[in-house]
Amino acid sequence: MKIFSTASDLSLALAADRASGRSIGFVPTMGALHQGHAALVRQSAADRAITVASIFVNPTQFNEGADLAAYPRTPEADTELLRECGCTYLYLPTVEDVYPGGMEVNPVAHLEFGSFTTRMEGSSRPGHFAGVVQVVSRLLDIVRPEVLYLGQKDYQQVAVVRRMVELLRLDVDVVAVPTVREPDGLAMSSRNRRLSTEERRAAGKINHHLAVVAAGLRAGWPARELERLALKGMREQPLLAPEYVEVVDGDTLQPYQDGEPVRELVVATAVRVGDVRLIDNRIALRANP
Amino acid sequence: MKIFSTASDLSLALAADRASGRSIGFVPTMGALHQGHAALVRQSAADRAITVASIFVNPTQFNEGADLAAYPRTPEADTELLRECGCTYLYLPTVEDVYPGGMEVNPVAHLEFGSFTTRMEGSSRPGHFAGVVQVVSRLLDIVRPEVLYLGQKDYQQVAVVRRMVELLRLDVDVVAVPTVREPDGLAMSSRNRRLSTEERRAAGKINHHLAVVAAGLRAGWPARELERLALKGMREQPLLAPEYVEVVDGDTLQPYQDGEPVRELVVATAVRVGDVRLIDNRIALRANP
Repeated sequence: MKIFSTASDLSLALAADRASGRSIGFVPTMGALHQGHAALVRQSAADRAITVASIFVNPTQFNEGADLAAYPRTPEADTELLRECGCTYLYLPTVEDVYPGGMEVNPVAHLEFGSFTTRMEGSSRPGHFAGVVQVVSRLLDIVRPEVLYLGQKDYQQVAVVRRMVELLRLDVDVVAVPTVREPDGLAMSSRNRRLSTEERRAAGKINHHLAVVAAGLRAGWPARELERLALKGMREQPLLAPEYVEVVDGDTLQPYQDGEPVRELVVATAVRVGDVRLIDNRIALRANP
Repeated sequence: MKIFSTASDLSLALAADRASGRSIGFVPTMGALHQGHAALVRQSAADRAITVASIFVNPTQFNEGADLAAYPRTPEADTELLRECGCTYLYLPTVEDVYPGGMEVNPVAHLEFGSFTTRMEGSSRPGHFAGVVQVVSRLLDIVRPEVLYLGQKDYQQVAVVRRMVELLRLDVDVVAVPTVREPDGLAMSSRNRRLSTEERRAAGKINHHLAVVAAGLRAGWPARELERLALKGMREQPLLAPEYVEVVDGDTLQPYQDGEPVRELVVATAVRVGDVRLIDNRIALRANP
């Protein structure tokens, strides 16, 4: 695995690969890697000749300075994991290399995402998706992969990035890789390591509530009632403070209305556990293609 | 496998076995056997030297003459299945042999079951459990097994029989064998063969609603709300007419009050599908012993 710290060096190496007809897969990360990231890298390594991973804790997508400061950083372990998973190139840039014109310059700020960014994470974390779109568009510009691999755990992020690709007419496929979970079902997340033992135990319940909602939706139970009971159920658990539980049309991210035909039905949640904010989701229904 | 049509012949054979120290397991049935019954017989055959099965469509436990008349009868297939499952003796009696003093004479009619027989099947099928207790006490008297094997599908029946064994201080263990299900989860039942193709498809949804309730209970959601949503969900399916969905303490069969400590928590339902009345249940929680 080769490590690059500048966009220009990485671009040069990739230009040679592209000229030799090697297909490129890309896995953008913020480091503090876990088995969820490993699944993304392994899938790219299995499908593509070249797999590029980036580790960059993007300041522009953090709406809370404390969250940015507390975000875990484990560069040695990350490098080792990427190597084991078959990563070809690691891009490990500075803020200046990613944003040569400054963080304030956001060339995709004009894009209009409507319902994709107004609800759920969009309303809970103002400016978050503007930062995500800013960094992903810049990274895609540097790497120019055939396929971008993202984790399904960040369901709304995947939807927003897909929409960006559509709006910018970028020539890249976005693949969402299923969420990897701990034995008790907690979705893998870099933030999990910030949980105390008791918080960790409580966090393991989050996915159980989502599983009940998903099973209820499959059985035809009303979405709003299921959201309400999941919120109530989580609020009754001492260490869980849910921000939202929403059942949405997976394609539009608009609240699902019982009975309407959808390609994919998703229940998503954000929950504060102590100082840590976790998100998770479950796909309840997926129409046969 | 030996077939007996009278209690006296069967008793004589069993007395010899008992004298030789062979332990006896007993599986009472109403015939129209399926894989659920097969599981009972196989478990007894694995655990006991002698397995007795009875096939007797007991008139005193039917509260509707039409249901009794429509109850399926498949004696040849039943005999074959019992033989394959390792049954030793089959008791195939007439009504007169089971009730020599007449069906009206119920020697256990004085037993008081309280909450065990007042709710669910008890209120939906007046006289049903009096008939069950009558026939099981008579059959136990004839067979005198060490272990009585019953299907968990008839959860309330198992509880009532256990209670009868306790009240009469009978020397028999009652073992409840887990429900055997079709690939779509429908609990095996002799009544299933009376369903039309469309009814059969609808009936396959029943267990999904119970599964949502069970998952909800495990996540700590309120029992009454889950009952209500399961009822509503089933009522919205064209061919399903649920009579009840009840979350009960498995030991007392009294409605479960959220948060109270129980050894076992069960959700049970009875649903009319066309002319056929089906029951099913799921154990939601079981305390570690």
